[in-house]
This record gives sequence, structure tokens and C-alpha cells, in this order.
Amino acid sequence: MTPKKEKNMAGVVHGTEDFRVEEIPMPTPRDNEVLLRMDCVGICGSDVHYISHGGFGDYKLKEPLVLGHESSGVVVAVGCQVTHLKVGDRVAIEPAIGCHTCRHCKEGRYNLCSKGIYCATTGQGNLCNYYTHAADCCFKLPPNVTMEEGALLEPLAVAVHCCRRAGVRLGSTVLILGAGPIGLVTVLVAKAMGAGRICSVDLMESKLELAKELGADATLAVSGHDTEEELVRRIHLLLLGEAPDISIDCTGSEACVRLGIAATIAGGVMMLVGIGEINQRLPITTALVREIDIRGAFRYANCYPAALALIASGTIDARKLITHHYDLSQSVEAFKTSRYGLDGAIKVMIHCQPRNTNNPERKF
Amino acid sequence: MTPKKEKNMAGVVHGTEDFRVEEIPMPTPRDNEVLLRMDCVGICGSDVHYISHGGFGDYKLKEPLVLGHESSGVVVAVGCQVTHLKVGDRVAIEPAIGCHTCRHCKEGRYNLCSKGIYCATTGQGNLCNYYTHAADCCFKLPPNVTMEEGALLEPLAVAVHCCRRAGVRLGSTVLILGAGPIGLVTVLVAKAMGAGRICSVDLMESKLELAKELGADATLAVSGHDTEEELVRRIHLLLLGEAPDISIDCTGSEACVRLGIAATIAGGVMMLVGIGEINQRLPITTALVREIDIRGAFRYANCYPAALALIASGTIDARKLITHHYDLSQSVEAFKTSRYGLDGAIKVMIHCQPRNTNNPERKF
Amino acid sequence: MTPKKEKNMAGVVHGTEDFRVEEIPMPTPRDNEVLLRMDCVGICGSDVHYISHGGFGDYKLKEPLVLGHESSGVVVAVGCQVTHLKVGDRVAIEPAIGCHTCRHCKEGRYNLCSKGIYCATTGQGNLCNYYTHAADCCFKLPPNVTMEEGALLEPLAVAVHCCRRAGVRLGSTVLILGAGPIGLVTVLVAKAMGAGRICSVDLMESKLELAKELGADATLAVSGHDTEEELVRRIHLLLLGEAPDISIDCTGSEACVRLGIAATIAGGVMMLVGIGEINQRLPITTALVREIDIRGAFRYANCYPAALALIASGTIDARKLITHHYDLSQSVEAFKTSRYGLDGAIKVMIHCQPRNTNNPERKF
Amino acid sequence: MTPKKEKNMAGVVHGTEDFRVEEIPMPTPRDNEVLLRMDCVGICGSDVHYISHGGFGDYKLKEPLVLGHESSGVVVAVGCQVTHLKVGDRVAIEPAIGCHTCRHCKEGRYNLCSKGIYCATTGQGNLCNYYTHAADCCFKLPPNVTMEEGALLEPLAVAVHCCRRAGVRLGSTVLILGAGPIGLVTVLVAKAMGAGRICSVDLMESKLELAKELGADATLAVSGHDTEEELVRRIHLLLLGEAPDISIDCTGSEACVRLGIAATIAGGVMMLVGIGEINQRLPITTALVREIDIRGAFRYANCYPAALALIASGTIDARKLITHHYDLSQSVEAFKTSRYGLDGAIKVMIHCQPRNTNNPERKF
Repeated sequence: MTPKKEKNMAGVVHGTEDFRVEEIPMPTPRDNEVLLRMDCVGICGSDVHYISHGGFGDYKLKEPLVLGHESSGVVVAVGCQVTHLKVGDRVAIEPAIGCHTCRHCKEGRYNLCSKGIYCATTGQGNLCNYYTHAADCCFKLPPNVTMEEGALLEPLAVAVHCCRRAGVRLGSTVLILGAGPIGLVTVLVAKAMGAGRICSVDLMESKLELAKELGADATLAVSGHDTEEELVRRIHLLLLGEAPDISIDCTGSEACVRLGIAATIAGGVMMLVGIGEINQRLPITTALVREIDIRGAFRYANCYPAALALIASGTIDARKLITHHYDLSQSVEAFKTSRYGLDGAIKVMIHCQPRNTNNPERKF
Repeated sequence: MTPKKEKNMAGVVHGTEDFRVEEIPMPTPRDNEVLLRMDCVGICGSDVHYISHGGFGDYKLKEPLVLGHESSGVVVAVGCQVTHLKVGDRVAIEPAIGCHTCRHCKEGRYNLCSKGIYCATTGQGNLCNYYTHAADCCFKLPPNVTMEEGALLEPLAVAVHCCRRAGVRLGSTVLILGAGPIGLVTVLVAKAMGAGRICSVDLMESKLELAKELGADATLAVSGHDTEEELVRRIHLLLLGEAPDISIDCTGSEACVRLGIAATIAGGVMMLVGIGEINQRLPITTALVREIDIRGAFRYANCYPAALALIASGTIDARKLITHHYDLSQSVEAFKTSRYGLDGAIKVMIHCQPRNTNNPERKF
Repeated sequence: MTPKKEKNMAGVVHGTEDFRVEEIPMPTPRDNEVLLRMDCVGICGSDVHYISHGGFGDYKLKEPLVLGHESSGVVVAVGCQVTHLKVGDRVAIEPAIGCHTCRHCKEGRYNLCSKGIYCATTGQGNLCNYYTHAADCCFKLPPNVTMEEGALLEPLAVAVHCCRRAGVRLGSTVLILGAGPIGLVTVLVAKAMGAGRICSVDLMESKLELAKELGADATLAVSGHDTEEELVRRIHLLLLGEAPDISIDCTGSEACVRLGIAATIAGGVMMLVGIGEINQRLPITTALVREIDIRGAFRYANCYPAALALIASGTIDARKLITHHYDLSQSVEAFKTSRYGLDGAIKVMIHCQPRNTNNPERKF
Repeated sequence: MTPKKEKNMAGVVHGTEDFRVEEIPMPTPRDNEVLLRMDCVGICGSDVHYISHGGFGDYKLKEPLVLGHESSGVVVAVGCQVTHLKVGDRVAIEPAIGCHTCRHCKEGRYNLCSKGIYCATTGQGNLCNYYTHAADCCFKLPPNVTMEEGALLEPLAVAVHCCRRAGVRLGSTVLILGAGPIGLVTVLVAKAMGAGRICSVDLMESKLELAKELGADATLAVSGHDTEEELVRRIHLLLLGEAPDISIDCTGSEACVRLGIAATIAGGVMMLVGIGEINQRLPITTALVREIDIRGAFRYANCYPAALALIASGTIDARKLITHHYDLSQSVEAFKTSRYGLDGAIKVMIHCQPRNTNNPERKF
């Protein structure tokens, strides 16, 4: 069953500005793993950082690294302990595998595990043809979910984790700072959780239009000339006179976090998901006396099932986020499009197999 | 501004099977109150119980009682301390007024206050022309919300409270037992909170069809002949092989609560909102060893804003619940329709003013 | 290092009323396991049930079973993947090993895992000389904690889990029904969590005296003649006029659960930890309208570290619970003492090595 | 009953460096109020700020202000609606009175109410002989609690609120930065909640000794010469190799908050209770990727009952915090002692009546 005669091509970064499509060894699944024939892999900003900066946050490239962690594939072989998956199953791949035995893993917060493996960071990525993965981190897709959507579960899981940690609930008024891919999936997910009124903020009108299409009730295009006070005033007006219960920063910019704290209601939450400068100068006493919690969201834990339910039930349609499609062999060009935001690029999808090969029912 | 020359007609229950439409005194608002010209009043099962049984639960009729607590009206006078409302404002009326000083009120659970006032239970109802109410319990309706919808906020608030206490969240699989008015609003609200898959159960196919229209993903019509084991099997099949995370009983029936406990996943919640026999024989040890929490939801606290946001944002359309309309003068007939479920009655609405008088924009 | 020439004696139940001390094979640790030379094993009611009834709840004896799951031992060999333990470490043994990959395990509720192993239930117990266990479920004891105390972590963990799920917090007023081993450790733990006033209830004055010694502020000895109403009145008096925020049933008796629901404050919690009849007739509507949550606690998850901290910090002294000591060879007699509560037995401890062999500092 | 012929002397601040003891009018209780003959009033840093800086945070002195909000007194008259208190009752006075009708009050977070009254900030203080207060904010002291302890409930309530918001629980490892009055009561309260191991940090050894006496398991005296890295290393050593689950800053200093974030475990909490510079430069990305929540605690809500239970049950003895006693007439000197920390002052208590006048049982 293992495809021994095929080549396993992969998108590999060797160093800053050195990204190549090349052959890598064919892997063999361990007892608790599945071997996957990869289908779709979305490009994430962290992938791009390896090419542009040789790393991402604390993670510095030490050896050649296969990129890719927003992915879906089809099971072609299963390890002897695997019971819930079989050959032919179409799956979304959760890229985080905890160590299972540290305190964080045992308490259900495996995203904080320091010994776990994460695709294209502490482990190899899956922008390739064949890839093995822990079976319990593979989620079977129902027939009405496409492989592209399977790959989109990853950014959706980020938004689910973020909105859960923020405590978005029915009727919550939400300010979302930034309308890039994460800002946009956050609009989708916050709305699906019953948020009452969402205001999306960005520099670019084109992104805000997509935010509106995806569910934002109001949008605000900011320029460098507005004072924070004036922006707060306008945000409150757009939220029909209310301060947001929750502000979510998807930019990493100090100015945005400051704006969020200034705008949020007493007792609310300033959620951080965008990663920026390590040190930021923030109005901490304002947050303290108004009991505005400042919380970060790092990746996700136990969020894939909800992200999948969102797509499978038809509650949201995330496909609008995908603006570009490339074959695996065109990966260099795909990364260029994503890196420079060419041609209005939001989410760029790389196909390791011809598109729709594994989409039985619903096509794009 | 106070309409001194008008009559104040009201629907008053004097005893079992003794319900009359008669004149009551014109009220005057206190400093923190508003005087309302009532518009819509929905009929609730508890109203009907006063007529059929002379009371409801622990509440026994001691003196003539104006019925009605699912209501909306228009402000015609304001007390001197009222600042957030003005004459002409269209409002939904939250019927619960806490004492503000007991432990429950101070902790934000004013629905448990034993000294508070609740319309048509510990206080007079508002099925009448003029009525005074605590201003902070009146919620101004935006122009796109009709007076009927304002009245529907009350059952919606019940569902919001119930789903919040149950912990319904993005992707939750939910079993809803009973498809009467509360079962149906619970479908609406659970879906709006992002529930992944909802299965609605009832005896009557007609109600289940409405449940489906309102968002249930699957329905199950039960008869007296099915074993509990067989019903659990079918529910799990309808939920695509999963046990529900949460079961919500909207019937009060012991058999339904037992079914819910049997069907729910370990670590899940059995939510009780329907009120039935005081004592019930339940598989308590099953719930214990599987850590299925059994929680009740009594009325609501701090739920009107979310219920209003749901309607105002267009997330849900609750108007399908209203099957019948009557004028205040036809209240006797209205109660008969509701009591016996005549003509497929779900929610019966009584209009204290001609319909649409106060609906500026959106009409039925 | 593996003690190949020693015998491995064990307390094995072969069937109802058929418990023997006999030799079992010497085990070998797997890569992620440690081999332990057992020291102390406390007797639990579930152990006794295997002897008296051939099983416990759903668990029926299918083959000979080594009993024992309240245990401590010393590491004599470590598997190749084990990093946090070394030969000579004295450890408490958490008897629950989750599957690591099911939803419950991933969410941190491994006590609900249906595929995991639990000593002396779904797996063999450790009332023996040599035993292997998953290293991540072994907790190293600091020098000031004795091996007996290490074994007591198990019932303490039950109480920690129970009090956490009940939401005991600073100032909580707590009613504890039953003053057997679990009722008594619950007094200790609730007090350590800052409970304001605890009332312990039992049939036997002698047990209540121990409850008082361990921290109960008030006690109530009940007889069969008191009405529930009278008992509620007395409990409220003993709690200085307040209804308990939390009632914890450690008996499994329907009458006690009914009493707890009747006594508890609106908005409070009725906690179930004692296991009794599967079906119980309870005042469910009373619980519903007063929003008294009925929650069960099954074993524990992530509670050993807190239980150990309690002992290591000297916050509580649990040693008073141990009333009897036996050698492994005297196990038949030890079980008899525990089963019939002979000589005022509360917790009976079996020593697989001479007492104090492994207690470097603090002795009984 | 109203003491019409007595004078009502008060400690009044008229402006920066202008604090006087002078006569003020005798108040009359409203329907829901009690008239209190004041007994003890502790001096808080915010009181001192009015004298030294003419204000505190956003609160600037606009007119003469009676200081004092850590207080106890005896009921001498009750308004007609008051039912739970009677003349002669000894009470602790919670200085926060919410508006009861805003969202924050209705949700139980009245400390965030922007329309409420707070003694010696948005309302007059109670460092005087006679004072009226909302009856529901007066907590009757049992006979075994002294009037000094009644006054201490205020700083204890600050610590209760802080530790609750921080999520201190059984076994939590806690780092407390600062050993002034708030740092010290936080040690007391965290320990009473079952914290496993507490490390207290300060510049002054003398304060750390008191911290140790009150329950800190370890202390660290810092000087300006230690690097943050070195301090983190030492803190982890003092906590027996563990990073704290929770760090609580009671200093308001940027360096301390930075240290707290650096030291805290992933998934932990950085709690802010000390108020310092509005803007602080913090390692926000470190907090984000390690999901360390940054939360502020502002005053308290619903914490007086727990603080009182702590004292009444004898769980903690807070009297060691009081280092100095003065009569009301000596208030100028009392404030000087507190302001400059003369003679090792921690908590300075002003007596409006001769000490022990109202302490029936337990004396200092």
C-alpha cells in the first residue's frame, strides 16, 4: 500500500531567501500514525518568515525544513494501533502533537507543551506529497467538506481558540483590529459564536470590504492621522454607542493594542493573537482599574472539532478567504504571491494533487 | 402626558376558571419607573396555569391577578430619576425586578432573589393598557425590531439563560427534548451560539417540522413504544455517531430527563428547564460516574441584552413562533387557543393596541 | 538492578469471598514505565467490594485480580524514556492512566477516559511487592512526606477533585454528608481550600468526633427518627443561620442526597461522590427552580500535585485517618478489619515492606 | 436615639498638605441606611495621597473631603426599610455602594460601576464620629471579631478579590511582589485559599520577616543589582524548582511586573493590584505566546463575607498587621506615621472611640 515507486517532492527552506522544491525521503508510519498523501497546504505568515528572515520568533532554522502546517490529505496507510481511520479517509491535519505526559498536556492545554512537536517549527512541515502524522491529530472530513476547507481548519482553529479564550458569547460586542487572514477568520468565528455587533478595523478598505462580507457589522479604515481618542469615539459610534466587550488584536502592533485597551468596556477583554514586538508600552493602569484582562492566544488546543463542525454544518463559508491556487511545483511563486500580497492575495493555497481530486461532492 | 381620561383595561384572573377582561386603576410611575402604554403581550404556560389550576408551582392565587409577562410597550411618562429612557421610546419589558441588596442580586443572579418582584407571580402582570415598571428593566428597541419581537424577548431570554448555564458553545452537539415554545426558542438560541449539530425530540411531527425550520439539524418523533436504549441509539445516529455534549429538557417529564442522562456524553450536561413533577426517579449514579452535571435554569438574569442583540442583528427570526393574534378584548378566546393548542397554536400574541401601531419600519 | 531472585507476593481476589496472598510474576518496565518496590497500600471500599460482591459497580471480576490502588513505592528500575525519576525515588502512584488520545484525555479530563487503565479495576492493582507503572503517573515525594502519606494521596485526590468540581472557595459554607474515609478527607480538603464553616453529618458520634478534630466546625448526629424538615432546620442553625453553599454527599444514600438538596442555598451545589443505588427519587424541581446544580465527582484528574502540596506544606495532617497497620502477609486479616469496621477502623494500611523502611525524616 | 447634642468630629483634607480634624454636621439616615457611631478606621495609601498630592489617580480633590474607608462602627439608628440590622449591632463597613441598575451592578461586578459611591473618593469618608451608610453594605460582626479586625476586612477584601481573580486554588504556587500592607494581606489570603508554596519578594528584610510570619514559605530580598534572569532563577529555586502558577504584583512597579511575567509558568496569571505608572513597557509577546493572562484587580465585589469568615473562623490572624494606634484627635500624627512609615509602620489604626469599648470578648 505504501507508494514506494513515487517520488516525495517537498517545499524545503534551506536558509534565508533559499526555498526549493526538492525530493525528500518517503516516510513510514509508526504504530500510532497514518501515512497521508497530501492534498492541500495553505501558506501562513510564519512559513513566509522562514524564507524572509530564516526563522520565526524564537525558532531559528538549524537544518533544512519542510514548510507547511495548514493542511489536508488522504490516508494511504495506517499504523497497527490506529482504529478510527482507514485507508481512503480524507482528513484535516492538526499540526500540534503534545508530549501527552507533561502538566500542560494532562490539563488539556497541549498548545503550551514545551516538548511537543509542531509542523514546520519543532518538526518537519507537510508541504510535500507523502507525510506521516499521529492518527489522533487527523480529523476525518465528512463528504460535504472539501480538501481546501480541510486545510482552512488550521487558521479557523486559531480563531476558535482566540474567541474561546476571549469569552466571546451571545450578544458580545467585538472590536477586531486587523483584517488580514487571522482578522478575517476571527470575524467569521466570532459571528458564529453569536457576537452581537462586530467592528473590524484595518488600514486597507479592500480588506474591510471582505470583513463586511464575512460578517462584520461595521468597519473602520484608519490612517496615521487619527488620534486614539478620535478612533475610540468612532468605534463606539459604529458599535451603536457601546464600548466593545472584547477587543481582539490581530496585528501585533503596539498602537492597535493601546487602541483596544482604550476602547474596551470596564470588565472586558483585550485579546492578543497577532505577534509583534516583544516589548510594548501599554496603558497598564487603565487596564488594571477597569479590570480589562489582557490575554494571549497561542495556536489552539481542542479546537479542530469545533472548526470542522462550523464548516460541515454550513454555518460559515470560509472559501472566500482563498484568493490564489498553485501546484506544489509552483511553490516558489506561491510563496512570492503570499509574501508580497500580490494581486490582492489573502490566503494562498498550494495543491499537492490536482484540485478536486479528492472532493467527492462539493466543488469550488 | 398621563392619559387620565382613558380606561385601563386588563386581563385578570380571579380564581380557577375565572378569567375576565375588566378595568383596573391607572398607575402612576415612581421616581425610578416609567409609565408604559402596553402594546404586545404573549401568553405563557404559567399564565394558563393560573386559569386552569389557580396557580403555578408554589404560587397560589391569593387575590385577583393581572396576567402577562412577555411584553412590550411604549413609554408615556418617566419618573424623575430615569435618565436612559424618554417618552415615545418603544421598549421590551423584563418582568424580573430584584431587591438589589440580597446576596443573589449583588452577585448578579437576581433570578434567585426571594424578595424581588416578578410580573404575574409575586407582582401584577402587564396584560393591560397602562402599566408602570422599573426603568432599568425596560430595554429600548431599535427601529428594526417590532413590538411582537419585543414581547418575544422574554421566552428568548429563557433560552439564552438556559443555553448559557448549559455551556452551549461553538461546535456543541445538543439534544433538545420537547418542541413546544421553549424547546423551539432553545433551538434558535443554541444554533445562534454556534452549536454544531442539534437534534430535536417531540411526540408531534408538526412541531418537529418547525424545529427543523428554526435550525434543528435532525429530529426524532417518539412514541410510547420505543425503549430508552433504542431511542439513545437513534439519537446518536442522528447526531452522526456522537453522544450529545448537552441535553436540554424542555418538557418536565421524568422519561425525558432519564433519556437525556442516558444519551449524554461523559462530562456533559443535562439541563432542566421544563418544570414537571417535584420528585423524579433518575439514574443518579450513571450521572455521577460519567460526571454529567444536572443543572436547572430558572427564568434569566442579564439575558435581555443578548436576546435583543440576536433579533436586532437579524441573526435569528423568531416571528415564526407566533401563530395567533388577538386584541386585548379577545383575551378570553386567546387563552382558550393557547390552553388547548387549538389550530396548531404555538405562541399566541395579544395586542393591547392595534397591531403595527408602533412598528415604524419592519412589519409582519 | 531488577530483583530477579526475590518473590513477588500479591493480594489477589479470585472470586467472591476468595482472596489470597500468593505469588505473581515479576514485571518488567516498558520504556515509559518504572519498576516499583511497593511500600504502602491503603484499603478502599471498592477493594472490599470485589471480595464481598465479586465486583464493584459495572466492574465484574473476570479473572484473578491483584487489589490495591492507594499506594506508594520506591523506584528500583526505570524505562529508557523516563527522565524525571531515578532509582531510589520514593513516589506516590496515581492509579489512573488515560489513553492520551481520546477527547476526554486531550481536554484534561482523563478520569472520564473509557480506554484508560485504572489499578484494580480495568488493570491489575498494586498490593504486591513489585509493580510497574507509567512514570508520568508517579509523583516523587519530598523527604518530609512519609510513605503512608504517599498512599493517602489517593483518597485526598478524590476529595480535591470533589471540592474543585463543587467550587468550594474562600468562605464557602459546606455541608458534608457522611464521615467515613471520604467524608473525612473532604473535611480536610474543604477546610484547606478556605471553607468558612463546615457541618459534618453522620449516624455515628465517634466518626463525627474525628470530623471535628479534622476541621469540621459543627457536627450533627442523625437518627432514623428526624424529619428532613427538622434536620434542615438544625443544619441551618449549626451553620449560624445560613444555608450551605455546597452540600457534598459521601454516602450514596438517597435520603442524604434529598437532605442535601433541601438544605442547600439557591444557586448552590449538591455534590455527589458517594456511590449508591443507580436510580434515586430526588426533588428535581426544587433543584431546578433554585438552580442547585447536581454534580458528580468520579475519581480525579490532575489532583495529585495539589494533594501532595497539602501534605508537603504541612497544611493538613492526614495521618489521623489511619487507624490500623498490617503486613502484606496479613492482608486477609487487614481486609476483614476494613470490611467490618472492626475496632473503630477508618483507614487500614498494608505495608509491603517493614514500616518506616523508606521514611527518611518524619516517622509516625 | 440620635445623639443630637454630641459633636461629630472628622479628619478632613482641604487640599495638598492641608488635613484637619474639625467638626462636620451630624448626618441622618435615609430609609435604607443606618447611622453608625464609628469605632476603628485604618489608614490606606490612597488617604495619604490626598494629603500628599491632593488626589489619587483620576480623583482630584474638588471640595473638602472626610478621609477614611477601612472602617467599623456600631449601629445607633436604622432607617425604616432596614431589616437585617438593629441598634447596637457592631458592623464592618464595605465602602463601595453600587448604583444597582447599571450593567456592571446587575452582573455582580459593582466595583466597576461608574455611578456608584465609594467612601473618600466619590463620596465622603468615615473617619469621624457619626456616619450614615447603606445598610446592605454593613456586615454584622460576630462576638469573637474585634472592631479593629472589622476595619481590617477592607484590605482583606482587596486580597480576596485579587486572589479570586487570579484563580489561586489548592496547591497553587504563588509569587507575591511587594510586602507592604496589600502584599502582606495577600500572603494571608492566598495561604487560606490553599496555595501550595508562596514566595514573597521585597526590598526590605523587615517586611519579608512579617511575610514569613504570616505564611510565606520563602522570601527573597532584592537589591537594584540583580538581573531579572538571576532573580527568576532564584525565585524558581525558592519555589523548589517550579515556576509560579500565579504572580501578584502589589507594588505598581514596571520592573516587578516584568519580573512577574518572566517568572510565571506558561498558562499562568500575572495579577496586578498595585497601581503605578499609567504606561508600562512590558514583554507582551512573551505573555502572549506563553498564555500568561495579565489581569487587574480593582477594589472588590462580594468579598466582605469571605473576608469576615476568614477572621471569624480563626483561620487567619490579621492583627499582626496593625503596628500603631491613635485616637481620632491624633489623626494628623497618625497620618504622618503612615505616610513616612515611621517606626516600622505597616497598618496605622485610628480609634474614634476608646479602644476595646465595643469588643465584648476578644481583646488585643
